[in-house]
Amino acid sequence: MPRITVLRKVLASNDALAEAQRRQLEAAHVVGINIMSAPGSGKTTLVERTVDGLRSPSRNPKSQVPRIFVVEGDIKGDLDARRVAAHEVNCVQINTQGDCHIDSLMLSPVIPLVLKALTPRQSSRAPRLPSLLIIENVGNLVCPAEFQLPTHYNVTILSTPEGSDKPTKYPLMFSKSDLLIINKIDLLPYVDFNFRQLEQSVKRIKPNLPIIRLSTRTGEGLDSWFAWLKQRLSGKA
Amino acid sequence: MPRITVLRKVLASNDALAEAQRRQLEAAHVVGINIMSAPGSGKTTLVERTVDGLRSPSRNPKSQVPRIFVVEGDIKGDLDARRVAAHEVNCVQINTQGDCHIDSLMLSPVIPLVLKALTPRQSSRAPRLPSLLIIENVGNLVCPAEFQLPTHYNVTILSTPEGSDKPTKYPLMFSKSDLLIINKIDLLPYVDFNFRQLEQSVKRIKPNLPIIRLSTRTGEGLDSWFAWLKQRLSGKA
Repeated sequence: MPRITVLRKVLASNDALAEAQRRQLEAAHVVGINIMSAPGSGKTTLVERTVDGLRSPSRNPKSQVPRIFVVEGDIKGDLDARRVAAHEVNCVQINTQGDCHIDSLMLSPVIPLVLKALTPRQSSRAPRLPSLLIIENVGNLVCPAEFQLPTHYNVTILSTPEGSDKPTKYPLMFSKSDLLIINKIDLLPYVDFNFRQLEQSVKRIKPNLPIIRLSTRTGEGLDSWFAWLKQRLSGKA
Repeated sequence: MPRITVLRKVLASNDALAEAQRRQLEAAHVVGINIMSAPGSGKTTLVERTVDGLRSPSRNPKSQVPRIFVVEGDIKGDLDARRVAAHEVNCVQINTQGDCHIDSLMLSPVIPLVLKALTPRQSSRAPRLPSLLIIENVGNLVCPAEFQLPTHYNVTILSTPEGSDKPTKYPLMFSKSDLLIINKIDLLPYVDFNFRQLEQSVKRIKPNLPIIRLSTRTGEGLDSWFAWLKQRLSGKA
């Protein structure tokens, strides 16, 4: 079975590189989030809302606004990076050229850019705030879960039109998640989505996985997302 | 680059096996359809509607109802096969055990079952109608497009909540398609979906790809799907 042997080698070297990159991020006080979902579940819109929300005076006093860097992963094109960069945040687009996921090798040329952008000038005497690295993975509910990244938390988005049966069918993605976001709750009146079914199947896969319900479109539920995120940035979780 | 070398070998042997299986299907007058999409776009519901519709007296005189066999592909579980089998149709569930797609090797034990189920008894003197094999691939807008199956047509579903920017981001899937179905048009009033953007990006990838708009939930637009399907079954397309 040569294919399996090769896959194992690739995964092992990916994980070792991810671990080394994670140490670099930690030395620079960077907290990393890896956002994964199927195509069109709302990853990019969540990134846009997050960048705006963390900088909003109503959510954060100016002294508490973290530096942010966004990495966009897509097979082709820079649609998402252009959307995110319009929010005046450092952003790099990775084109995977056909690959169905981001891996740590693809991030090798990106990490130095992240460290440079998120490291404050030496003259600064302000207390060091943690910075935030957001990686938006390729839209795919299967493959991205197999590749460790240097990020600290995996956030999976499932949107209500996709249906509540997805954890049973894609268990690895949910077992690797630190937070499950149910997005597009504004569409609940028009789709078949059974929260009880969802919670029961999540319980079988990862019993303590926190679940946040929100709509990136209407903004409902975003408070819970920001609370979760700030706990991770402050190291209180 | 050992990884690329191995991948090429696997793909080449997959394609050769798919070609051999296709010849077996053709000898038995079986037309094969491979349905692909992201998770939750409506593949299984389309299969259910198709099975019921082809047997409905209002759509088909009884003498024209094809024999049908359905193959359900999922990483884990038999949720979809149970849904489809409830419509009293021959159905096999393939569990890919983590793999992000169906390939022809996985179909090896299935093809003999298909041939057995779809071959009429020798005593039958009725004229030989073509039979229909429907393969529902793993929910994934990336990997399934890379693996040829023994089927004759690739049908890709994109649902309106996923957004109209998907062809630009997942071009291989759309370039490999023989039909693009835009599903969940009943949700158009509640989501951002731009048909002009969709058609323009499809045009750049595959200029003559036919596009059918429908809702598997309300049934709107299904007539066009059945017309497309019957043309393929009758060999008139």
